[in-house]
Parts: sequence; structure tokens; C-alpha cells
Amino acid sequence: MKRLLDPPALRALARGCAILGAGGGGDSRIGLLEALQATEDFGPAALVGVDDLPPDALIMPCGGIGAPTVHIEKIGNGDEGGRLREHLEALTGRKVGALMATEIGGSNGLLPIAWATRIGLPVVDADGMGRAFPLVPQVTMELAGIDVNPCVMTDERGNLIVFRAITGHWMERLARAAAVEFGGAASSTEYTMTARQARDAIVRGSVSLAIRIGLAVAGAQDDPVDALIADVGAFRLVTGKISDVERRTTKGFVRGSVVVEGLGGDAGRLIRLELQNENLAALEQGRVLASVPDLITVLDSETADAIATERVRYGQRVTVIAMPCDPIWRSPRGLEAAGPRAFGYDFDYVPVEELARVPA
Amino acid sequence: MKRLLDPPALRALARGCAILGAGGGGDSRIGLLEALQATEDFGPAALVGVDDLPPDALIMPCGGIGAPTVHIEKIGNGDEGGRLREHLEALTGRKVGALMATEIGGSNGLLPIAWATRIGLPVVDADGMGRAFPLVPQVTMELAGIDVNPCVMTDERGNLIVFRAITGHWMERLARAAAVEFGGAASSTEYTMTARQARDAIVRGSVSLAIRIGLAVAGAQDDPVDALIADVGAFRLVTGKISDVERRTTKGFVRGSVVVEGLGGDAGRLIRLELQNENLAALEQGRVLASVPDLITVLDSETADAIATERVRYGQRVTVIAMPCDPIWRSPRGLEAAGPRAFGYDFDYVPVEELARVPA
Repeated sequence: MKRLLDPPALRALARGCAILGAGGGGDSRIGLLEALQATEDFGPAALVGVDDLPPDALIMPCGGIGAPTVHIEKIGNGDEGGRLREHLEALTGRKVGALMATEIGGSNGLLPIAWATRIGLPVVDADGMGRAFPLVPQVTMELAGIDVNPCVMTDERGNLIVFRAITGHWMERLARAAAVEFGGAASSTEYTMTARQARDAIVRGSVSLAIRIGLAVAGAQDDPVDALIADVGAFRLVTGKISDVERRTTKGFVRGSVVVEGLGGDAGRLIRLELQNENLAALEQGRVLASVPDLITVLDSETADAIATERVRYGQRVTVIAMPCDPIWRSPRGLEAAGPRAFGYDFDYVPVEELARVPA
Repeated sequence: MKRLLDPPALRALARGCAILGAGGGGDSRIGLLEALQATEDFGPAALVGVDDLPPDALIMPCGGIGAPTVHIEKIGNGDEGGRLREHLEALTGRKVGALMATEIGGSNGLLPIAWATRIGLPVVDADGMGRAFPLVPQVTMELAGIDVNPCVMTDERGNLIVFRAITGHWMERLARAAAVEFGGAASSTEYTMTARQARDAIVRGSVSLAIRIGLAVAGAQDDPVDALIADVGAFRLVTGKISDVERRTTKGFVRGSVVVEGLGGDAGRLIRLELQNENLAALEQGRVLASVPDLITVLDSETADAIATERVRYGQRVTVIAMPCDPIWRSPRGLEAAGPRAFGYDFDYVPVEELARVPA
């Protein structure tokens, strides 16, 4: 399998990445602009399946790290991916064979494509989450036992840091502190692996999936939200308007909460979304409607475009949907890494499809 | 020139390092304990002159980075120096020939000796300051144009970071943020150089000088403070007691101020010391008595033992002295890097010997 990521594919991808981002991963329009420009300058990047790569080919998972609010204003200069590749090759003594999005969500689903086309490498049709998560070790590679080391981080100025942490947790602490010092956002690669290792350590087909979702929304005959819900098998949590936003950029994250006031058939309902870069939980009068690791996405009710956590604002007419995460996150190790308790919540995870069956 | 740093030499060195630390560099008693234990276990380290090393021998300047208040309670495990050496050799592809204290002041004058004896390397009779300073690029190597990169940092747990910063200023920011994340203190090496490069880039003889100062104090017949002042050519700023201490550990530094109330012939005087890890300025009714880059040291009035900024407390009977810094710091580049304005003060540097001639 090999396809070229031309501008129409990138536009659909951006739409899909925003939806799969669960509010996070950075504004996909910024990643789209970077990818379109790089594609115009260097030609379209090739999308390859992990099984199409030689087993020993080195895969470089990569993307941005930091607060999405910062990413809106602090944009890369395009050289970051090449610089990461160069230093990773120097550290490992091996050539990088392909780039991969660490997370398919938001801008981070597109950034590796912008970098890949500049340096003439393909992009793997996969990612390490099937969505976006805020923390470094919240990736399928960590669950599969791939070494987080070395992590290479750079900024748009040309500073470079190599981390070798004793655990994924320490990597998160050290990388986050550096991203904050860089101004709240940086670019990084971690969990380098061979294609052979990647086979059981990644979420496959995420780039294709995001493109398909984007096309489904764009091609909807009637209601794009309905078309999206049907396409991805999502659950509608509420339709209404944003009545309150509390959001702060702190310690390298966007944190806060959003209140959605129901309209129409949902009149009288108040849904609260809690967020840390991504939407973590949807609550109604103390009842959990959906939570991590399942995906909670805020959509524009008219266009079905996902609204990232840093773009949500008072008065927007929205539909909040939730969809099942990749099954790997529902395993005991997956829930330990990215379930509600991993984010400090005092409740156990219940799959969104079970929660949806409980009458309000 | 080559001598062995036996326990008596280490004890005198600790005393001298505390005095040359200008309040900073970490409590020298902790560095002394580490050096004595390592010497007991591995034998005394050799002290060598930079001219005695082969011109191509690699010198590894090293020490602790962070807040001295933290260093009192968060002690290394002894492996840090060996780990730094190992990774520096891997990065440069060359063997390290000798260790050197980045700063002779405080615990940082002794730590490289503790590390050197463990890994069987000599210590250069020199340092990069002739005192202690709070910031990474405040070293003579920076003034001499030695590349700060790579900086290797580690902690007692075994985490490891390699920084390649675009400037010394960026290295300070990135290394400080990492030291804070490690809990407020870490161990690092930067400004790696050959012995040939070091010849014009270091303060020579600082280890011998510190030992000589320590011996002068220990061997004083009458008043140790008088003996010290005579030995180093210092100026007595005030004798009195500590009447106020304002000190906080923040962003990887100790910051604050100390008020000394004159006693005896100094009765009625109030001297204020301002500090950032080290004593930066001594002020009396708005008049500058001494300032960086000259050394300001608080001594126990009875024993002439230097009291580090993190150990100063209410009621201590002290004598505050000031002494000229190494001449390199009085050059335009030296003052730009470590003069009063480099610390945010709105006054120009005047050498302590000139200030001492001005009547109060």
C-alpha cells in the first residue's frame, strides 16, 4: 500500500485529525498550512503501511509537545523534523526510514507529513494513540515495551536536547519542563523503533482513517454531524451552546473546563467537559457520560468541524460526541496509563457504549 | 607539579572553598564528606597543573547546579561524575583526561575531587571562576570563546540529559529548568575543552589557593578573621550580628537578602547583603560597599569559617569581608557577564579596593 498525500487528502486528513484529537493535538489548521506549504515546495509525501517497510527500517515517531494555546502563536520554522532526524541518526548510528505521527490528533497528525516531505521520507499509516493524549508515555509504544529513549527535542531557534530518562514518567517531567522553558511548545521524537517492533506497538491505519472521516464529513448530503456519527459509530452526548469556558495555560498544558447548555431537545441540560489539552471527561449532574481513554470531541453543530480545546469559546453552537478508543487503551495497562485514574479522577472507566445505554 | 589530595588537604580545601564561594557553590561540608569518603574508598586524587597535561587531553569541567538550600538535603550518590564522563566520552568519541571544578566555591570545589578519585582521573588545579557564580555562562571559558556544548546533566536516579544550546544564555535557561525538575539540584558538565584550549580559558591555581587559605585560617595564632584578611588581602565591611534573613528557594536559585547589624566599633551600622546563591552586593544606606564580580563572604567572627547563603541565620556573630575577583572579571566582557548590571542592578561596578578608600 502506498499513496501520495496530495492537497485534497491533506485537507480531509486535517478534518479527520481534528475529530480524532478529542480536542487536543494542536489546531489542525496550523498543521494543515504547514503540510500544504511543504507539499507545494517539496511534493507530496508518501504514505506507507508498516508492513511495506523493511523490518529493520527505523521509524521516527514525532510531533509537537506543549500547550495547544501556545502552538497557535508559536509556529515552527519547518526545520524541526529534519533536525530531529539528523540527531536521532547520529545517536543511533542508523538511518531513519520513515516518520510517524506520535499522535494522530490535531496538528500533530499533520506535522510529521510536513517534515517528511521536506526531508524526502515516507510517513507510516499509523500513530501511537489513535487519538491525542497529553502525556509523553501515553502511547501504545510504551504499552508494548518500546524504550522511550532517546528523546530528542528541538525548538524553532535550533536548540537541541537529548533525554535519556529512567522511566516514561521521568521523560514526561523532563520533556515538559523543557517545552515550558522553550516558551510552552517544542518538537520532539521518542520511542524510536524498527518496523518489526512497530508491528505490535502502534495503532494501524490512523492516517487513512482520519482521511476517510474527513471525506465523510465533507461529502455529507444533509447533516454533517449525523453523517460523522454514522461513519465513526459515535454517541451524541448533547447539542447546545457553550455557556462557560474556564481555560488556563499552565506548566505546559491547557487545563480547564467547558459548560455546554443544551438546546432544542436537550434544553435544560448542562454538560461539563473537563480538559487537559484534550477533553478528559463529560459530566452531567455528577454522572459520567464519557471519559478517557474514549474520545470526546466538540463539533460545530453546523459543519461538524471539531473545535479544539484552545478554540472553544462562549456562544458556539456545538454538538459533543464520544466514540470508543482503540481497544488497546481498554486493556488493564492501557487504563492504567490513560484511564480516568491516570488523570486523577476517582472513578473507574466504563466504555462509552455502556454509558450510553444507561438512561439519564 | 603533582600532589595528592589527602584528607588534611581536603579539610583545608573545604575551608578555602567556602571562603572563595562568596556564600555560594553549596555547603562545602557536604562536598568535604563526599570527598573524604571517596578518598577513603579509592585513595587520594591527584592534583595536576594544566601545563602538565598533554595538550590534547580533554578536561571535563563539572559540578552541581541548582539551589544550595536543596543541596543540603538532596545529596548525590557518587556515581554522577562517572556517568557524566562516560556520556561525554561517547558524545565526543574521546577520552577525558582530567576533571576540573567549574567553580572553586563551596561544595563545587570538592565534588569533582570526589568523582575523580572514584574514576581514577586527576583534578586540574584551576577552575572556571575563581569563586562561585549562579549562572551557567558566568565562567572564564565562556569569556574565552569555548563552546558551552555539549552540556551533559544527570541526577542521583540515573536520568541523563544532553543539551546543545544556541547560546550560553539558552544553556542557562534549559539547564536550570531541568535542575528544577530534578528537584532543585543536579550534576552537570559543560565547556569541555582540551588542555591546550584551557591554558587561556581558566583561573589557574584555584585549588592550591583554596588549600592555602584554609591552612592560613586553621593555623592562625590569634584572630582567624584577621589572619584570613591579611592572607587574601580582603577588606572588612562590617562586624556584627545577623538581624534579618529573607531567603526563598525559587526557580533553581536561593534568592533573598540578609541584614547585618554592626556591633562594637560598628555599632549603629546596618549592612544589607543581597543574594542569588552567592552574595551579590553589600549596601549601606544605599551606598555600595562591594558588589559582584568581587567576592563578598560572610565569616563566623570567632572561627573565620565562611557561612554559606543557605546557612546564614538570625543572631549569628559575623564579619563580612570583600576581596578582589580574578582580573578577568574586571574586563569589559567579564563585567558584561557577571557585573552588577548582569544581575539587574542599576549601577556600575567599582572595584572593592576603590570603594574601601571612600569614607563612609
